[in-house]
Amino acid sequence: MRRSVIGGAKRSSHFLLNQAHRSLLSPSPPPLHHHLGSSPSSSATALLLLLRRLSSSSSASSPPPPNMSNPVTVQSINPKVLQCEYAVRGEIVNLAQRLQEELKANPGSLPFDEILYCNIGNPQSLGQLPITFFREVLALCDHPTILDKAETQGLFSADSIERAWQILDQIPGRATGAYSHSQGIKGLRDTIAAGIEARDGFPANPNDIFLTDGASPAVHMMMQLLISSEKDGILCPIPQYPLYSASIALHGGSLIPYYLDEETGWGLEVSELKKQLEEARSKGISVRALVVINPGNPTGQVLAEENQRDIVEFCKKEGLVLLADEVYQENIYAPEKKFHSFKKVARSMGYGDNDLCLVSFQSVSKGYHGECGKRGGYMEITGFSPEVREQIYKVASVNLCSNISGQILASLVMSPPKVGDESYESYSAEKDGILESLARRAKTLEDAFNSLEGITCNKAEGAMYLFPRIRLPEKAIKAAEAAKTAPDLFYCRHLLNATGVVVVPGSGFGQAPGTWHFRCTILPQEDKIPAIVSRLTDFHKSFMDEYRD
Amino acid sequence: MRRSVIGGAKRSSHFLLNQAHRSLLSPSPPPLHHHLGSSPSSSATALLLLLRRLSSSSSASSPPPPNMSNPVTVQSINPKVLQCEYAVRGEIVNLAQRLQEELKANPGSLPFDEILYCNIGNPQSLGQLPITFFREVLALCDHPTILDKAETQGLFSADSIERAWQILDQIPGRATGAYSHSQGIKGLRDTIAAGIEARDGFPANPNDIFLTDGASPAVHMMMQLLISSEKDGILCPIPQYPLYSASIALHGGSLIPYYLDEETGWGLEVSELKKQLEEARSKGISVRALVVINPGNPTGQVLAEENQRDIVEFCKKEGLVLLADEVYQENIYAPEKKFHSFKKVARSMGYGDNDLCLVSFQSVSKGYHGECGKRGGYMEITGFSPEVREQIYKVASVNLCSNISGQILASLVMSPPKVGDESYESYSAEKDGILESLARRAKTLEDAFNSLEGITCNKAEGAMYLFPRIRLPEKAIKAAEAAKTAPDLFYCRHLLNATGVVVVPGSGFGQAPGTWHFRCTILPQEDKIPAIVSRLTDFHKSFMDEYRD
Repeated sequence: MRRSVIGGAKRSSHFLLNQAHRSLLSPSPPPLHHHLGSSPSSSATALLLLLRRLSSSSSASSPPPPNMSNPVTVQSINPKVLQCEYAVRGEIVNLAQRLQEELKANPGSLPFDEILYCNIGNPQSLGQLPITFFREVLALCDHPTILDKAETQGLFSADSIERAWQILDQIPGRATGAYSHSQGIKGLRDTIAAGIEARDGFPANPNDIFLTDGASPAVHMMMQLLISSEKDGILCPIPQYPLYSASIALHGGSLIPYYLDEETGWGLEVSELKKQLEEARSKGISVRALVVINPGNPTGQVLAEENQRDIVEFCKKEGLVLLADEVYQENIYAPEKKFHSFKKVARSMGYGDNDLCLVSFQSVSKGYHGECGKRGGYMEITGFSPEVREQIYKVASVNLCSNISGQILASLVMSPPKVGDESYESYSAEKDGILESLARRAKTLEDAFNSLEGITCNKAEGAMYLFPRIRLPEKAIKAAEAAKTAPDLFYCRHLLNATGVVVVPGSGFGQAPGTWHFRCTILPQEDKIPAIVSRLTDFHKSFMDEYRD
Repeated sequence: MRRSVIGGAKRSSHFLLNQAHRSLLSPSPPPLHHHLGSSPSSSATALLLLLRRLSSSSSASSPPPPNMSNPVTVQSINPKVLQCEYAVRGEIVNLAQRLQEELKANPGSLPFDEILYCNIGNPQSLGQLPITFFREVLALCDHPTILDKAETQGLFSADSIERAWQILDQIPGRATGAYSHSQGIKGLRDTIAAGIEARDGFPANPNDIFLTDGASPAVHMMMQLLISSEKDGILCPIPQYPLYSASIALHGGSLIPYYLDEETGWGLEVSELKKQLEEARSKGISVRALVVINPGNPTGQVLAEENQRDIVEFCKKEGLVLLADEVYQENIYAPEKKFHSFKKVARSMGYGDNDLCLVSFQSVSKGYHGECGKRGGYMEITGFSPEVREQIYKVASVNLCSNISGQILASLVMSPPKVGDESYESYSAEKDGILESLARRAKTLEDAFNSLEGITCNKAEGAMYLFPRIRLPEKAIKAAEAAKTAPDLFYCRHLLNATGVVVVPGSGFGQAPGTWHFRCTILPQEDKIPAIVSRLTDFHKSFMDEYRD
């Protein structure tokens, strides 16, 4: 019964993320799970939604009487918060944290001796080392009084010292402890703009750059700007990175899904975009923007330039803002593939500021550097009117500025050491070592998945993930039903309990109805990969032996 | 005419922040400025609102047809964004930035040779130096490979090296470049909880602490949780720090003002809270929370413990969440005053987790350290049910974590060097030097303001600001009207143009109707204070000479 609800949504159907919310207010609510992601992983939230539905209907029309003993309940909080899901740190990760505590308290009590977090693109948590030059510069900017001490010459590279001076000179009063301009320090934005120009071969304006604490706040800012109500729709890929569904839910908009085609290596078809756009419009939705994640998360596909041109043309023709998630631009593993920014593609088609509203998101958390903890990133916004830009600036100002270390790191990422700099060789060796290793890990894991019964896995051309499809036996699906769990969550939970490997069920990203996947990062260190492969293989065989029809 | 609109709101009237928004959708819109803050400083936004009103009424009921050439206009963005105001970085600051560029391009072209930013609590931008120990630890955590090198002993204090090791050992894999737990690194939360316990004499639970990128995102998170619609109200002091009005506007709630009493040193009367609460409830508003800023911003008052007990009792009785902005807890200048956290006050009354929902906001940006650029802070939430806490955790998870340097700094602020540590003496000297100097600066500026014709200024018992009241001559008010400007903005603009001193008009914080104020930080370095006083005095005299009735 449950399966028919979870898997029953038609591929072409138009999901309203806030459908469940509206259902709370309607006298005869539709099934709880008929919305994006099918929320099978979120039994807790489903319960809360149910509680809300069962609670006094007066809350919709008049303020509830104050509850003196408990002023905040799940029935009384913002339903958009209840609605939002973020599977990357959801139920499976909570279970992993409990197992980790168990391992610490009772070593040897579980069939594995460590938890391997393959749920999240967090390279340094799995042992990847930071790029030395970047950290040298950050340390010197944090404590500039050592810059002219003799010992510093022995501890830091000459070009890191020089770069730190350059950066300090770009900061008014050399005050790395001051709030900066709301968009970020102007000199750092100059550096980033120069880096974008060098990458694309087209001009970039430092005043178009907003530095942010990672890419996530930038995405939220754009959703906040574009979404007024559930009548505003955002076209998102399925599968997608759940920041998008979460942010759209938190801002009360409608996620309009377009499906990537697994058969053609997660191809993005403009005909599919068009179909979904028209269907949404026919339902009275004003579609405001198109999200494209390139390289893809969780899918790993790298778009061809030709395809990108079609997407640009589509956005221009249909009056959509193109929200280009380009945080994996450095993570390309397929030799025949190359990253092209959407701005470069649009400019090379002759389209300028008057033709297309385009936002490019970049982060210091990804790439070869993987500096997740530094929370640096930026968005480059082009094509917006001065009046709208002023509004974006105002919202940025409310939060004052992003953290200065993250700002500095964003400038370093877009302007790393160059040939001739003292650090260039060690920098290049560190960078190439990481990227080459990631490519090898991606291939090994992909091959391993493809060797397993009922699993097929597209190549990771880029990014940090594999998104294998599992064809689960009917018996496993029935067992999941009996456990009141989505089948992919059921599989991932069994995998975690047996191996300590943490992956995220496909339902957290969205997937074509009736298909099941999981996302697995390619980030465990290379010396651990063989053990992971053998654990995954053993687990999968015994799982299939148990549930094979 | 304009004056009657700006000053015409009755003190007891209940301002709906989203009134202007709703007016856009109504056939016969009320005056544009009849909402909190009167938005006189925001002529640009007023214009945009007007544009929106004049635009096609169809946008309210059905999706507008896509505008192919310009998909995003001020008419089509989220009206909550238009609604939001943040005067601390508003029109006056934009003018200051233009003047600064002018000074750079044409030195000597203006009657002053530098811009003095007294608009914002940003100590290090005005020359305050960071606390050495804090920066040593941050630098070592950024680049830990130098920790065991010989030269490091010569460059860094022994206890900073030891502390860095301790912190690294609290981070899984010593990975300062990894995303942390969504609430922040557990070991750092342990340290912060211990610091809170030492401060209050009551237990603190590390699981109640959420580390955030400064206090602002924490405030947004709570507003997001508590506000579902304009039917949800938040009691805020007037004058208030405009983060609160901005955040309430962005989340679509209603700001319920309560007035601080300027006559009694910005006293906070529970009778006033009660009156405003009842008035809001009679209008169908469900009042969810009370914001208290202690020490006060922009008012500088430090609440007496007795007064705090009354506030706690009021929140408990009325079922309100107490949102305690305690970011200035280290900034106390009045010898007879002492900071008491609301948690300590509630616990000392015998109230525990079951009696009161309480959130305390803290930041690394304020205090004696003033590390604004690091974007560190936390909120300690107590009294919420496990189900609601789970929702807060989920929202925190969507943004992954706050920046690790900010997290580390928050732990240092709550656990600075102790007697016997190598850095203790230099740390104490730096801290005391800054706080004593701030107290002197506050007194000098307060006396200067009070010596001026028509200006009265309450004492800054704490925080970083003075909020003098200006009694403007009728002629000045008429001139402001003629210039289509609020009188306080008119004064502040003249002040900036004449002296280079940037202050924020009182209308950005809210003020009793018919009164005019501005906020001026006490942060310029002490050697600059005499020149500032003389420039302010000369300006004020000539302004009064020009406009005296």
